[in-house]
Amino acid sequence: MSELRWDPLKLNWVIIATERGRRPRDFYVDEEKKSMTACPFCYGNEDKTPPEIFAIRPDGQPNTANWRVRVIPNKYPALRVEGEPSSRGYGMYDVMNGIGAHEVIIETPDHDRSMADLTEHEICDVLKTYRARYLDLHKDFRLRYMVIFKNHGLRAGATLHHSHSQLIAVPLLPPVATTELRVARNYFDTKERCIFCDIVNFELNEGIRVVREFSNYVTLAPYASSSPFELRLFPKHHSHDFALLNDAQLSELATAMKDMLLRVKTVLRDASYNYILHTAPPPHRRPGKPGYWSSLEYDYHWHIELVPRLTQMAGFEWGTGFHINPTSPEDAASFLRDAEV
Amino acid sequence: MSELRWDPLKLNWVIIATERGRRPRDFYVDEEKKSMTACPFCYGNEDKTPPEIFAIRPDGQPNTANWRVRVIPNKYPALRVEGEPSSRGYGMYDVMNGIGAHEVIIETPDHDRSMADLTEHEICDVLKTYRARYLDLHKDFRLRYMVIFKNHGLRAGATLHHSHSQLIAVPLLPPVATTELRVARNYFDTKERCIFCDIVNFELNEGIRVVREFSNYVTLAPYASSSPFELRLFPKHHSHDFALLNDAQLSELATAMKDMLLRVKTVLRDASYNYILHTAPPPHRRPGKPGYWSSLEYDYHWHIELVPRLTQMAGFEWGTGFHINPTSPEDAASFLRDAEV
Repeated sequence: MSELRWDPLKLNWVIIATERGRRPRDFYVDEEKKSMTACPFCYGNEDKTPPEIFAIRPDGQPNTANWRVRVIPNKYPALRVEGEPSSRGYGMYDVMNGIGAHEVIIETPDHDRSMADLTEHEICDVLKTYRARYLDLHKDFRLRYMVIFKNHGLRAGATLHHSHSQLIAVPLLPPVATTELRVARNYFDTKERCIFCDIVNFELNEGIRVVREFSNYVTLAPYASSSPFELRLFPKHHSHDFALLNDAQLSELATAMKDMLLRVKTVLRDASYNYILHTAPPPHRRPGKPGYWSSLEYDYHWHIELVPRLTQMAGFEWGTGFHINPTSPEDAASFLRDAEV
Repeated sequence: MSELRWDPLKLNWVIIATERGRRPRDFYVDEEKKSMTACPFCYGNEDKTPPEIFAIRPDGQPNTANWRVRVIPNKYPALRVEGEPSSRGYGMYDVMNGIGAHEVIIETPDHDRSMADLTEHEICDVLKTYRARYLDLHKDFRLRYMVIFKNHGLRAGATLHHSHSQLIAVPLLPPVATTELRVARNYFDTKERCIFCDIVNFELNEGIRVVREFSNYVTLAPYASSSPFELRLFPKHHSHDFALLNDAQLSELATAMKDMLLRVKTVLRDASYNYILHTAPPPHRRPGKPGYWSSLEYDYHWHIELVPRLTQMAGFEWGTGFHINPTSPEDAASFLRDAEV
C-alpha cells in the first residue's frame, strides 16, 4: 500500500507510491517505452483496462466499444480506495496509509485527436463526466479533496498519447488548496467580497491581460504568472463549486475551453501543457469548527489553470520556491489574443 | 528591469524577467540551439562573457586563460544589482524592482568533465569559490538571501553543457527558506535542540536510509523524499553557515560531494540532476524583532539537497503541491549504497 509521509522540514506530505516500486533501470528506458503495444484506451481494447467506473455510451454493455467518454481506475494508482487513512508516528516522522482514488477519464475514442481538436459538444461530454465523478466521490467521507487535471504531451508528464485526464482524491487538504481557501476566507472576512470576483473585475477593466471574454467566462494571463503563457479561465460571476453547474453552463464552458486550448495549440505549436480544475472541496468534509469550515467553501471561486510546459523547473525553483518567468503576462496575453482560431 | 510580482492567491512572489522577453518562437527552437557556437566557458573565450567577478588563477591577468574556477555575471540575469527594491502597489497587486545578483560559477576549464569527474582537490576549489562569493555578497545589505545551485543535464534545466553552477541573491526571504528557518526555530524553542541534528542522529541510528557516512558528513535519502533517489548531505555536527567553514572542513566536504555525485552518476547512468546549497541567510539582515532574527540563523543547519530529474512534475503536483514518488527512499538508499564507486 502507498504511504503518505510527512516532511518535518518542508511541512508537507509526500505520496510514496511503493506499488509502482520503480528501480533505476525503469528510469533508463523512459524514452523508449512509447506506443509499443496496442493502445488500451482505443475501441476494442476495453478488456485491457480495469473495469469501467462510468461511461457516456448511447447503448450497449459496460466495457464494450461505442462509448463517447469512459472512466476507469488507474492501473498503477498512486492511492487506493480500500482501507482507512489511520495516521501514526514513526520516530521523528508521521505516516498515513495511502487512501484515496485515482481515475482516468478517456476523453475520446479517437487515438490521435487531442482535447483542442474535439468539438464543443464532445468537450461538453468530458465536462459532464468531470461533474459526475465529483458528485459520486463527494459521497465518500474519507476523501477530503479531489483534483481533476490533464497532462498533455511528454514534457507535461503524459505517458500515454491517447487524450485523457485524471482524477486524484486525497484524504487531506493539499497545500495549494489550503492556501487558496484561506486567502479567499480572509479576504471575505475583511471586505465581504470574493477575491476571485475582484481580480476578474480588475482584469476586465485593465484589459491588457485578458485573452478572450465570453458572456459568463473569461480567459486571462495572471498578473503574477509563474511560467510563460500561463492562463486561468474563470466564471465571471461568483460560483464556488464546479459540480453544481447545470448543462447550459457546462455548454458555454466547453466553448471557452475549446477557444483557450486552440489558442495555446496555435501560438505555441502544440506545446505540452497541464490544466488543473480548482474547485471547492466537497461539502460536510471540513475539519475544525463546523461553522468556519462549512461556510468556507462559499468564499471560493472555481477556475481552470493552464500551464504550458515551455521552461524547465530547475535548481533555483526547487531551492527557493520562487519561479522565474521570461515572458511577461501582458506579452503572453497579446500573442494569444491575436491568434487566429 | 525585471519585476518581482506578488500573487495574492498563492501568496508568493514571481520574478518576471522581462529583459529575457521570450516570445513564442523562442520556445519552438529549444531543442535545436545546442552547442552551435564556441563555448563561452572554455579557455580563450574569456572575452565572450561579461568581465569576471572572481577567479582561482595561479597567475596571470583577469579575463585571460589559465584559471581553475571562474565566476562571471549571468549574461541574461534574472535580477540585476543596480537600484533599490522599492516595493509599491498596483491595483489588487504588489510589485518590486528586480534587485539582486545572478552569477555563474564555471567549475572547470574542461568542456566535457562534469562535476562528478573532477578530482577532490578541484571540487574543493569550487567549494572555496562558493564560500568566497557568499562572504562577498553578505556585505550588500539589500540582499536578504542567496542560493547556490547546479543544473546538470537538459532535464534539470541546464542550457549550456560546460559544467557550471549559479548563484542568485534575492531581496527577500524565499518561501522554502522561510519554512525551514521557522521550523528550526520552533523546534529549538520547544526542545533546545536542532531539528536537523535530531534527524541526522535518528537516521544514523536507523541506518536504512543512509547512503554513506564520513567522519563529519553523512549522505542520506530523506524519509519523505518528494522524488526518486533524492539525497541530502548534512554535516553531522551542528553548523549553521556554510560560509564559515574552514579549508579542512571544505576538503572533507569535497570528498563527500564527489562520493555522492559518483554514486548518482553510476546508478542512474548520468541522469540530469539539480543540487542546492541550503545555508543560513547573511547575518544582520533580518526583518522584525532583532533578537528573534539575529538568533534565528544559529538554529539552522546548512546542507546540500540533490534531486535527480527522473520524473516529470505534472498536473497533480502543480494543482495540489503534493508530490508522488514511485521509489521508496529505503530502496533508493540501498541501490546507491551498494554502487561500486
